[in-house]
Formats: sequence, structure tokens, C-alpha cells
Amino acid sequence: MIFLSVLNVLFKPKSVAVIGASRTPGKIGYAILESIKKSFLGKIYPINPEASEILGLASFPSISAVPEPIDLAVIAIKAEKVKDIILECKKKKIKAAIIISSGFSEIGNKEAELELKKAGKDIRLLGPNCVGVLSPKDIDTLFMPHDRLKRPEQGGIGFISQSGAFGTALIDLAASEGVGISKFVSVGNQIDITETEMIDFLGKDPSTRAIAVYLESITDGKAFVNVAKKVSKIKPIVAIKAGKTKAGTEAVASHTGSLAGESQVYSAAFEQAGIIEAKNTEEVFDFSKALANQPALKDNKIAIVTDGGGFGILAADTAENCGLELVQLDAKSLAGLKQFLPPYASVKNPIDLTGDSTSERYQKALEIVFKDKNVSGVVVIALLQIATLDEKITDILRDCKMYGKPFVVCATGGEYTQERARKLESFGIPVYPTPERAVKAMCALRDYGKIAEAGKPAPKPEEKKPEKKKPVKAKSSKKKRK
Amino acid sequence: MIFLSVLNVLFKPKSVAVIGASRTPGKIGYAILESIKKSFLGKIYPINPEASEILGLASFPSISAVPEPIDLAVIAIKAEKVKDIILECKKKKIKAAIIISSGFSEIGNKEAELELKKAGKDIRLLGPNCVGVLSPKDIDTLFMPHDRLKRPEQGGIGFISQSGAFGTALIDLAASEGVGISKFVSVGNQIDITETEMIDFLGKDPSTRAIAVYLESITDGKAFVNVAKKVSKIKPIVAIKAGKTKAGTEAVASHTGSLAGESQVYSAAFEQAGIIEAKNTEEVFDFSKALANQPALKDNKIAIVTDGGGFGILAADTAENCGLELVQLDAKSLAGLKQFLPPYASVKNPIDLTGDSTSERYQKALEIVFKDKNVSGVVVIALLQIATLDEKITDILRDCKMYGKPFVVCATGGEYTQERARKLESFGIPVYPTPERAVKAMCALRDYGKIAEAGKPAPKPEEKKPEKKKPVKAKSSKKKRK
Repeated sequence: MIFLSVLNVLFKPKSVAVIGASRTPGKIGYAILESIKKSFLGKIYPINPEASEILGLASFPSISAVPEPIDLAVIAIKAEKVKDIILECKKKKIKAAIIISSGFSEIGNKEAELELKKAGKDIRLLGPNCVGVLSPKDIDTLFMPHDRLKRPEQGGIGFISQSGAFGTALIDLAASEGVGISKFVSVGNQIDITETEMIDFLGKDPSTRAIAVYLESITDGKAFVNVAKKVSKIKPIVAIKAGKTKAGTEAVASHTGSLAGESQVYSAAFEQAGIIEAKNTEEVFDFSKALANQPALKDNKIAIVTDGGGFGILAADTAENCGLELVQLDAKSLAGLKQFLPPYASVKNPIDLTGDSTSERYQKALEIVFKDKNVSGVVVIALLQIATLDEKITDILRDCKMYGKPFVVCATGGEYTQERARKLESFGIPVYPTPERAVKAMCALRDYGKIAEAGKPAPKPEEKKPEKKKPVKAKSSKKKRK
Repeated sequence: MIFLSVLNVLFKPKSVAVIGASRTPGKIGYAILESIKKSFLGKIYPINPEASEILGLASFPSISAVPEPIDLAVIAIKAEKVKDIILECKKKKIKAAIIISSGFSEIGNKEAELELKKAGKDIRLLGPNCVGVLSPKDIDTLFMPHDRLKRPEQGGIGFISQSGAFGTALIDLAASEGVGISKFVSVGNQIDITETEMIDFLGKDPSTRAIAVYLESITDGKAFVNVAKKVSKIKPIVAIKAGKTKAGTEAVASHTGSLAGESQVYSAAFEQAGIIEAKNTEEVFDFSKALANQPALKDNKIAIVTDGGGFGILAADTAENCGLELVQLDAKSLAGLKQFLPPYASVKNPIDLTGDSTSERYQKALEIVFKDKNVSGVVVIALLQIATLDEKITDILRDCKMYGKPFVVCATGGEYTQERARKLESFGIPVYPTPERAVKAMCALRDYGKIAEAGKPAPKPEEKKPEKKKPVKAKSSKKKRK
């Protein structure tokens, strides 16, 4: 599938010029060039009037001095010089520019931003006051040092942030937990490319399976809802709105100079647009990694399988509180479980395999539970510290993907546990450090199940086939996103 | 201060017998002996009728065969044999026994448990169906392998758990984050020593500065409230109640056979007893590490200092939602901040030092903010990925302890960040991976401020000094717990 959009040039340019490239380690213009060099396979042109070579790359005194065409410019120079550079970019027929430079509306300098906006006609601009983009397989413009901020592997989460710091901190967290992203974009002050256009873009991007958005304000509410409504029918969108209280709204004004608007208005807009609202930072991360890697939950019927009774109880509490039902397994399943489980285990949902469970016990129990027709999704709690659980448990959990039902894992603990959690994440299995967070992620899968269902078009007459009385809706949404 | 209690023998025995000690690695009786050998400096007597030496220790066929006196027995044998061993322990004048063995009321075997209880008169029993105790400087009876479950350093959290798995998973998490504990006790089926007696014990334990409790049920509600009420006046108690919903309550019945009781009843009892209720696993951990290491917040007036605007906004939202006030700094502070902060920084609370902040900028700003008389506590957000922040930031944050005001840190990110977070934790500074969790921990410090204040006795006439019109209440509570 070929995916054509002018915004593609941000992630897949043929050539990049770095205006403000510096020879001095520690400077932003050096760090950006270093990140691009590490990640990008196309032509790179450092632009610096005083250098002939930076980081082993031939440097040019100006954009116009570059003899070949340039697709993308990354600009990290003083605010007052940005406008002229943009005009030069246009002359050079550069398609898009990422403006890292700050010093515009976010510090009250609205006039300079307006001028920049005017100058920016006929070229696509990202920023200013942003950290640019990261597409693990293509390009990385982030200026945070690689030893301090790890870059994640390729994965299914497309992430749009109006705050560079929020975006990069989550990127770092994702990398350390083994959670992959498709594309990250820091939209900054949005003088041209907005969060809405990026949602539309990621909606069409085949490598993005779920979209996460950090919002402080929305430029055009109507457009935002319309676009999100369309996109959320085909892939899940999770968004957090910062600045929902009086104190928070005032802080938004200090941060980006924008108006945060009414909290209820946002929640209502999210609901209307089919956006799953994250109530805190953790939920942005927790929900999007589930939504990007697991099929939606088609109803609210789940089973909890655990090796720790206490964790099962806490998971059951959270499930009930968010409207998930712990279904009774069918009689055949119960009989099957009783056949091999020790008498002190509990076959009642939450199914407690107890603290001396082996990997085999998990395998047999999970097969029965996943195959049970009453069960639509499974929360697996696996406390990996117990001596009886061998290394096979990670493969057993990976193999549960074959059942096609959504599942999430809770594994609480230190290094040993976290290392195994990373392995599971690499299989596309979302892992959470507490039972409550695991269950809430399952709720997000349930929420998206509802949204996808509601967003389905009535089947067209010619598509109706007499054998199929009704398309199995949850399945088709699953297919799209796997 | 000498602290005498019969329960002391659980943590500071002179000698320990391990009944069911095994020569086979992987067996529980082997793992327990190994943990005790690694941690305990007194005499250890493995009891095994078939061995003469285990793990380099002389083994005995029975307790009575041990020629010297024994303080504590740790029992890991089949349920049906435990009663006879307890009778033998009594004959040997052993002061207390930790019964790891399961197979009693938790699997419906109530009669066996009742018999055990009868046999247990004149000896103190912990368990059965528990994992025992961990006191980092004294003794460790946990049977989880050391390479899978790390043991934390000595610290201020005393932790009581009715679920062994919940307790040990959190112990492991604490160890990996550098959070210290004073004593951990898994109370199991509580046929003798209950959660209430342990709260009383830890209340008197000088090394415990805050108590965390995982509860499924309470044996004696009245005694629980009375004891907790007394203890919470002198040190904070955080508790989580598992089984607060219909689904959860049913799961409790399957787990320990006990009745979970009404959710509202528990919340009311907690409030009456001055217990801070944790609503989820994360809060147990988050709140207790703040309460064990920071003074209480005397009112609700806080400042937020950040290098990421977005994080400042999210923190402000959470603060307002939980009743914390972002105070205006006084005029002198504002002038002081403006003197050295760049024009694009924000001196309005949340104080945004921006993404190019240096360690020095933090140092100067924090000094002004901590010294401001309007500010009672500080939430410091330090995104450590930025290149301008050097290694000094951890020492600067450590030095903020000298101001005597409560503070918590938010640092979001991967390995680099987490390594520095561990260092901060070792200084007694609680660090959280999201702004919301950091602010909620500050709320717990505020909650305890209220509880400590309410619990203060009226000053006795002879203590009243004419110079001091009113004792500074928050300070004295601070003193007690530092």
C-alpha cells in the first residue's frame, strides 16, 4: 500500500538540511545533527557559515549553497533569524521545515509568530518551539542525548504531543519498557501543521495502529472532532487534555500562550469524536500500548487468571468498578480445570492457580480459559518471582495470541520481572506493574470495542451475502489493527 | 531506646530452627534455609531427620535433638504434621513459630486450623499460609529465590500483608527502586498474631517511620480501630482494602476463606482510625515511601517547580483536584526569581524553569521557593533527559532536605532517569514516574498532616511556657518521624 501525503516528507525525506548545525558537542545544533546522522539514510546537509565539515559531513554556508535539491529543513537557530531562513527554504523549493527554535508565542512574542506564519505560505511548517519527529526506522531529530533518552523500537503507537518534554519523556519510558512506536511528532506552537492534521495523517499511516495525543488546546474544535470521528472508526485514539482545572488552565496560558478552554467541553468533544480519554500520564501510555497491540474487547466479559490470590482480588475490584464482568466459565471448562488443578486452587473467576503454579499449569489453564465461549478477554496476572515458574512462561503467554482474544498481563516486581515484561512487550503483549493498571487497560480495549462498533457503516447491499446473516463486527475491527 | 515486645523474637531471635529444611535446591525448605543463612547472624538449626548437614550447617533429626535453646522456629512441612511440631516447639520452650505451610482454612480446612490454634497456646504463632518475615538488617525467611526477588535495603517502611504474593511483589519493586523497608511481615491466616497486633508492634518499633498494610479482612474491627487510632497519632498508616466490590469480596472468600465485609464500613473505619486509604497497589507504595521519608504537609499550600511546562500543567490539574493550593510566591521571591531566570521562564506557580534549565538554575530557584513563607511543600519535576542538567542535580535535590519542608520529585523516563531516581530514593527523597503520582503523594503528606494535628493531645499545663504562645504543631510531628 502506497501512502501519499505531503506530511510524509517529515518522516521520509530524501534529503535533510540542518540549519544551525553546530560543531560543539552539547549544543542543540550538534545534538540534532547527531540524531539525524544516526537514524537517517538519505543525504544530510549541515548548514553553518563557519564550518566546512561537521560530524564527518560536508557542511554548507547556506541553504542556497547546497548544489542538490533538499526535501526537509530542520531549523535550530535564534528566533529572530527563522523567518529569513524560511524564505530561503522556499526559494530552494524545500517541501517542509521543522522549526525547533523557540521564542515565539510561548513567551508572548505573538507578532514574530504571525510574521513567521505569513512567511511560511507554500511550505509546510512543523513548530516552532518543538522537538521535531522520531520515526524509529526513518529519522530522529530529537536533541536529547542518546545516553539520557533512549529511542524506542518500531511499533504500533503513533504519538502526537503539544509538549516536547511530555512527548520525549514518554518516548524514553516506552524505550525502556520495550514498547514500540510508529511515529512521534512534537507539534509545538502549530503555526501550520496542527494536531488535527497529524491525527488525520496517522489515521492513514499503515504502520500506526493506535494514536496517542497530548493536548493543551485545540486550534479548531469542529475540524478536530470531524477528523477524529473519522479516524477513530478505523483505529483507536487516546488523548489526554492538560489544563482541565483552574490552576491547570492558568498554567497552560503560561506554557504556550493558548487558551485551554473548558474541561467539560473537551470531555464532551472527546466522547463525540470517539476518543478514549486518558485521565493521567500513565493512562496515555497504558492504554495506547494495549490498543496498538491487542484486538478490541467485543463486550465486557472477561476472565482473570492469577498466581497470587491478593492480586486477583484487586483485579476483580477494579474490573467491577469499571464495568467489566467476571464471567462464570462454562461447565466443560470448569471440569477441565478441576482435572489438573490442585485442590487448593480456585476455578471460580478470578481463577487462582496459586503461588506454586508451574508454567505448564498456566499453559493448560490459559488454553481452557481462552477457548471458553463465555470469555471475550483475559487479564493474566503472572507474578514471576515464584520458583516454580520457569522461563517457558513468556512463550506460553506469547502463544496466547493465537486465540485472537484480547489479553493483558500484570507482572509486579523488580529487575527479573521487568526483564521478562520487556520480552513480552516485544511480542506485542502489554504488561502492567499493578493489577489495577492491567484491568484498566482492558477497559480501554472494551471502550474501543464500543467505539468501533458504533462507527461501523451499515453494510452496503452488494456486500451482503446470504450465508452471513451479520458480519462479526469485533473480528473485522481486529483484523484492521493487527 | 530499648524496645521490648514478645513479637521482637520474630525479627531478632538469638537462634532459629528450620523445620522442613531441605537439601534439594528449588524446594521451599531449601530456599528458606538459604535466605536465613544469608541474612541471619545467630545460630541456625536445620531440622531434617535424613540429613546431617545442609548448606554447611549441622542438621538435627528433631527439635528436641538440638542441644541448645531455640528462640524461633520456621516451619515448612506438610499441613498435617504442623500441629505435632508446634507441640514439640512448646516442649522445647521455643518462643515463636512462623508457619509457612499452607493447607488450612484457605482451602476450607478449618478444622485443622482450629486444632492448630488450640495447640498453639503458650507459643506465639505467625501464619499459617504465610511467607514469614524480612527485616533487612536482621533476618529474611522468604522462600522466593534471590535472583528473582530482590531484598530491599533498610528503610523506614514497616509493611504488613495478609497476602504473601502482594507483600513480596511490592518488596521486590521497592528493592528495584531503591526504597528501603524496616520490617515486612506476612501474617497469613492469622491464627494468633493478627494485623492489629503487628500495627501496634510497628507503631512502637523505632526503625519504622510509616506503616503500610494490605488487608483482606479484619479479625476484630473494634480492636483494629482502637490500635490504629493510637498508632496513627505518632506515625502514618497507609492501608489498602482488597475485596471492596461484589466480585472482589467473592474472590476474598476463595482466597483466605474470610469474609471481606462491606466496603463503606472499611472506609469509615479507616477514617475513624486515622488511616490513609490507598485506592490501589500503586498508592500503597507511593504513599508509604513519601510518609516514611518526608515530614507531613502542615496545610495545603504548595509550589510546583518544573523544567517541562506540560508536566507542570498536569501537576497543577492534579493538585487542584485533590485540594492542594498552588500559592502565589511572595513579592521578594518573585523578584529574586526574575533576577536570574531567563525571560521565557515562568515565575507563576507552577514555576517553569523550562527545558534548557541547568542544575544551578534549579538550585537558585529551589532555594527561593523553599524559603518562601507562603510555601509549605514543594513538588519538584525534574526531567533529567535534558542535556543542560548535569549530575549535580541529585545533590541539589538532596540538599533541599535542609529546608525542613516536605517535597517529592517527579522524574519520568527510562534507564538514565531511573538510575538517578534510585539515588534520590537512597537520600530519602520519594521519586515518582508521573506528575500525577508525585502530587498525590504530596496529598498523602497533607492528609497525614491533618491526622497528626487532630490526634495531638492538648498541651499539659506544666508544659506550657509563657514565651511560646502555641506549639508549632507541624514541626513537632516532623521531628517524630524524621
